[in-house]
Amino acid sequence: MIVILRPDATEANIQHIVERTAKLGLKANISRGVERTVIGFIGPEDALRAIPLEVFPGVDQVMQVLAPYRLVSREFKKENTIIKLPYNTTVGGTKIAVMAGPCSVESYEGMLSIAKKVKALGVNILRGGAFKPRTSPYDFQGMGEEGLKILQAVGKEVGICTISEVMDTRQVELLAKYVDILQIGARNMQNFSLLKEVGIIKKPVMLKRGMSGTIKEWLMSAEYLLANGNYDVMLCERGIRTFETATRNTLDINAVPVAKRLSHLPVVVDPSHGTGSWEYVAAGARAGIAAGCDALMIEVHENPEEAFSDGAQSLMPDKFQELMVSCKRVALAVDRDL
Amino acid sequence: MIVILRPDATEANIQHIVERTAKLGLKANISRGVERTVIGFIGPEDALRAIPLEVFPGVDQVMQVLAPYRLVSREFKKENTIIKLPYNTTVGGTKIAVMAGPCSVESYEGMLSIAKKVKALGVNILRGGAFKPRTSPYDFQGMGEEGLKILQAVGKEVGICTISEVMDTRQVELLAKYVDILQIGARNMQNFSLLKEVGIIKKPVMLKRGMSGTIKEWLMSAEYLLANGNYDVMLCERGIRTFETATRNTLDINAVPVAKRLSHLPVVVDPSHGTGSWEYVAAGARAGIAAGCDALMIEVHENPEEAFSDGAQSLMPDKFQELMVSCKRVALAVDRDL
Amino acid sequence: MIVILRPDATEANIQHIVERTAKLGLKANISRGVERTVIGFIGPEDALRAIPLEVFPGVDQVMQVLAPYRLVSREFKKENTIIKLPYNTTVGGTKIAVMAGPCSVESYEGMLSIAKKVKALGVNILRGGAFKPRTSPYDFQGMGEEGLKILQAVGKEVGICTISEVMDTRQVELLAKYVDILQIGARNMQNFSLLKEVGIIKKPVMLKRGMSGTIKEWLMSAEYLLANGNYDVMLCERGIRTFETATRNTLDINAVPVAKRLSHLPVVVDPSHGTGSWEYVAAGARAGIAAGCDALMIEVHENPEEAFSDGAQSLMPDKFQELMVSCKRVALAVDRDL
Amino acid sequence: MIVILRPDATEANIQHIVERTAKLGLKANISRGVERTVIGFIGPEDALRAIPLEVFPGVDQVMQVLAPYRLVSREFKKENTIIKLPYNTTVGGTKIAVMAGPCSVESYEGMLSIAKKVKALGVNILRGGAFKPRTSPYDFQGMGEEGLKILQAVGKEVGICTISEVMDTRQVELLAKYVDILQIGARNMQNFSLLKEVGIIKKPVMLKRGMSGTIKEWLMSAEYLLANGNYDVMLCERGIRTFETATRNTLDINAVPVAKRLSHLPVVVDPSHGTGSWEYVAAGARAGIAAGCDALMIEVHENPEEAFSDGAQSLMPDKFQELMVSCKRVALAVDRDL
Repeated sequence: MIVILRPDATEANIQHIVERTAKLGLKANISRGVERTVIGFIGPEDALRAIPLEVFPGVDQVMQVLAPYRLVSREFKKENTIIKLPYNTTVGGTKIAVMAGPCSVESYEGMLSIAKKVKALGVNILRGGAFKPRTSPYDFQGMGEEGLKILQAVGKEVGICTISEVMDTRQVELLAKYVDILQIGARNMQNFSLLKEVGIIKKPVMLKRGMSGTIKEWLMSAEYLLANGNYDVMLCERGIRTFETATRNTLDINAVPVAKRLSHLPVVVDPSHGTGSWEYVAAGARAGIAAGCDALMIEVHENPEEAFSDGAQSLMPDKFQELMVSCKRVALAVDRDL
Repeated sequence: MIVILRPDATEANIQHIVERTAKLGLKANISRGVERTVIGFIGPEDALRAIPLEVFPGVDQVMQVLAPYRLVSREFKKENTIIKLPYNTTVGGTKIAVMAGPCSVESYEGMLSIAKKVKALGVNILRGGAFKPRTSPYDFQGMGEEGLKILQAVGKEVGICTISEVMDTRQVELLAKYVDILQIGARNMQNFSLLKEVGIIKKPVMLKRGMSGTIKEWLMSAEYLLANGNYDVMLCERGIRTFETATRNTLDINAVPVAKRLSHLPVVVDPSHGTGSWEYVAAGARAGIAAGCDALMIEVHENPEEAFSDGAQSLMPDKFQELMVSCKRVALAVDRDL
Repeated sequence: MIVILRPDATEANIQHIVERTAKLGLKANISRGVERTVIGFIGPEDALRAIPLEVFPGVDQVMQVLAPYRLVSREFKKENTIIKLPYNTTVGGTKIAVMAGPCSVESYEGMLSIAKKVKALGVNILRGGAFKPRTSPYDFQGMGEEGLKILQAVGKEVGICTISEVMDTRQVELLAKYVDILQIGARNMQNFSLLKEVGIIKKPVMLKRGMSGTIKEWLMSAEYLLANGNYDVMLCERGIRTFETATRNTLDINAVPVAKRLSHLPVVVDPSHGTGSWEYVAAGARAGIAAGCDALMIEVHENPEEAFSDGAQSLMPDKFQELMVSCKRVALAVDRDL
Repeated sequence: MIVILRPDATEANIQHIVERTAKLGLKANISRGVERTVIGFIGPEDALRAIPLEVFPGVDQVMQVLAPYRLVSREFKKENTIIKLPYNTTVGGTKIAVMAGPCSVESYEGMLSIAKKVKALGVNILRGGAFKPRTSPYDFQGMGEEGLKILQAVGKEVGICTISEVMDTRQVELLAKYVDILQIGARNMQNFSLLKEVGIIKKPVMLKRGMSGTIKEWLMSAEYLLANGNYDVMLCERGIRTFETATRNTLDINAVPVAKRLSHLPVVVDPSHGTGSWEYVAAGARAGIAAGCDALMIEVHENPEEAFSDGAQSLMPDKFQELMVSCKRVALAVDRDL
């Protein structure tokens, strides 16, 4: 932590800060410049975050030196985390995993049919929402537990891992019973109660970045999971909210190399939400791989016109097949496989 | 709902759309322009939202005509909603309510002392967090139920209404037992499970706008509350996230007249979070009143240097007193009182 | 300037930085923490900005201590700048100035009529665009010099100051000949050629904040004007671009107290562009005054239906009269006049 | 253009709109729904943009049906524009062009050295700024005409095309004399005077997207160039401004497929500005190619520590060589070459 004083800060101001921080076990290094005095602190920065130095008399700005996260950082763990899943599936290794399926679970037959098709195309993880976060209370809210049963049954029948979203602390156990990966959605990135609850179970989890979540906040939310004991965490970039309205979200492709540099956790790219339009999904998927992601999550539906949700960004199986072919070529070009 | 077709849309495309929407009870009005054909639909637009017209062959764009919210809209209810609270407090009438207090409940003595001071200055509602949404898992997470007991006891002793944040569906009953108003924080604006749970209880609620929530989404989240039966809802503008970093958030002052025009619900302005710095809180509070808000929410602490959270944006009682004096003058200038 | 090193930075890295900066006359203060080493520099920070310390081996982050602007800062000049204009008009003193008029100059008769009306309501400065920055090349681009002649003639006849936008380095002399204040528009906030050219003339200038200009960048653009010799500069907040689409722009009300704290220059608020809709202009104007602005700029048109540009955000004279009455009341409530 | 009326709009309101628009040659198609009446207009939408229908009594919203640009659109010209440059270089065909070089021209020797190196690695176009848009008036502003002479001389000696930025209407002829491509920078995307001036010369031009420019506005700015007669226009995505501060800008990778779909013009990606940090440039470059761009623009410097500007995002020749190798592989994977 570094504190920059106002030009008119007094010696008494400086003394007050030094004494207050000394109580926390911090040593102050005072640097008196021509225009400003700057104080750097040596010692446990976490302790310092607990006191609001900004309001101390004479203080102009406070700058953090250390990242506020620990367990998720590359400094804590140098090598990439590789998450092991059923059916010999891994996320985080050389092979790029692909999660695909409809936005919502809609029926057993539909789920089975799409699961067979996507598995045949190389997909390792079947997605399908049972609890849906919908902007409108009047829109379809998901099939609930019935949907989870369908997803589990189809996963077993086809031999493919499953992922579904958990929206509520009270659903965590239920989800953990039925699926292989719990998804925490963008709107819940800072639902700290949910993060704690998912942190204490032993199931892999995919944490989506919030619409206006900074990369630092995203990593801090992941830190909640690890700090509570769950180390099998994937980060998912799904587009952020910006001023641009030509696409539903702005896929932050920079977030891929940034997150890979700062953290050892695998990074998933979701070009379906990242673009919001089926016409741009393949470009976003290829860009994600070229930028270094470890997995893709893509919405596929056999009949988007009849989809219960997110039809506009769902790919038909034939377009999805083209995507898989071109993504595999790009993966090989960056020394990965898919 | 209006559908704009691509220049190369065929008659078959048009026919397909007309037939599919007719099944939903909608009548299509086809307008063939020189460059584009446009289809307008007459009938229940809600039905139409359920099908993703964007993916129908020949469709270029889909535009919504009606707002997706109903119960919260001015069209549904012309007159302002006035929420009645204990101790003859109201929110939404001519008199502007003021909520003030520390970010977190920290102790009985501290709470009692600040409550007496702010009440003497004209504050009607005492704030204090017991469950705190903190970016870091290592930061103070609030006193929990113990904090709620303190808040309730102080409220009764001083004779002042109370408000505190609910973060988890499992806490809703608990909060409802102890406080007069439940607060849904910015990070939970689209925590739909929580919205439903708070919607079914009979307690006034204040819904903060999410950091990247559009005004439309904010109203849709309020719609969740009303649609579940809770009509005593206040909207709280607390700053949005933008590119500007000179302030913690950007107080969206435009949101006040926009929300008042679109909805009958009272609008609260929180300049403490809206600016993030005690030096700018008074300017934001006065601007909120001048723009037409119905209440203010302000963080006040007797010793910000020792605050457990948000010290940097907390006002000391003397500065808060100045704020109340100047806000009262501005309130009178816009034919309100405070 | 403060440099934070990577955890794996070597002594050779540190030595290299110390030697390179010593050549610029800077003294390095090295603080070796448990996890990181931090170097603070004492001496002329401007010199340091010329070298990209970010790329030096071992460097993780570089943080600026001093604001990059000088002449515009409160530290350079403590008292408010008051700009003197013809007809006993000032901007920056206790009295709040009001600039009003149509978006574009459209005709002599129209200009004369509106000028008389707004002057009678207390307006001190007449606005009217002659060169218009239009998003589309097919839209009305302004009357050019003919418009300036009209503006000047009307200003003299009515006895009111005038302001108009300059878009091109080649127009600076022309504008300076006809109007009392040159306006630099939001799209040209970082047109540095234009800033230099306007900096060397002796005419008051109003610098609008760019749509995505940070407050720091806005002040740096003003610094271009002062550094070239023009000290009569007003800053104009006119709304920034955010994700919100319910309004054309987001009026950044926080920018008023922030700019007033950081700089001695007068701050103007433009609620017409800041909201983009005539229905919200009065709320924005009152909020601007309540937050501490020194002047308002408002679009007024006698017949917005026939306006050549920006009709949607123009007020009719009767609505504008109501605005002036309510703004005067708010001004008095904050110990200003209007 | 579609107009949605307020629920309380009267027949007189409707009649007034119909009559006013009929004068412009438009036919109104009135659709009376249960809750709202909607008017669609058939005829020249450009005419309609000239009148502010938003202010007409009874109007709630106005929605545009047609894109406001013509000449730049795919509807106007189906096939990709391919721009021909000296030395058999093209932009827009199967082969991906690469522009590289230092941010600023600094000396003849430095330019010659880097030009030889990048040409040997496959670069087709040499970049180097002579007029630099700098946030601070105290920073290096470029070598001016001297820099252009150096760039031209080096280009001829090495046999490589050249590109440099034009910042001022008065410099257009000068630039056109010395370089093969004129660059319009992000800060000048809506400098309409400059766009017009560059539109009337016969030189290829690269138009950078503004920091907060929507894709629609970017295309409208390109339309200024084409409407004035210059059809050799490239669009350059260089990152937009968002709330994220971990990178200097947010590279909007979605903009590549969106611009390619809406327009026939070639799209360039600049990952140097798009990320702002040399560590992320290669990931951004590969992502750009994977997403479908036609060219790359990358800052390369032999000694970033001594660069006059933008050192932090400049690559050393060895890292740039790695980038070229990996980009070529990705290009081949998407059936392009480099």
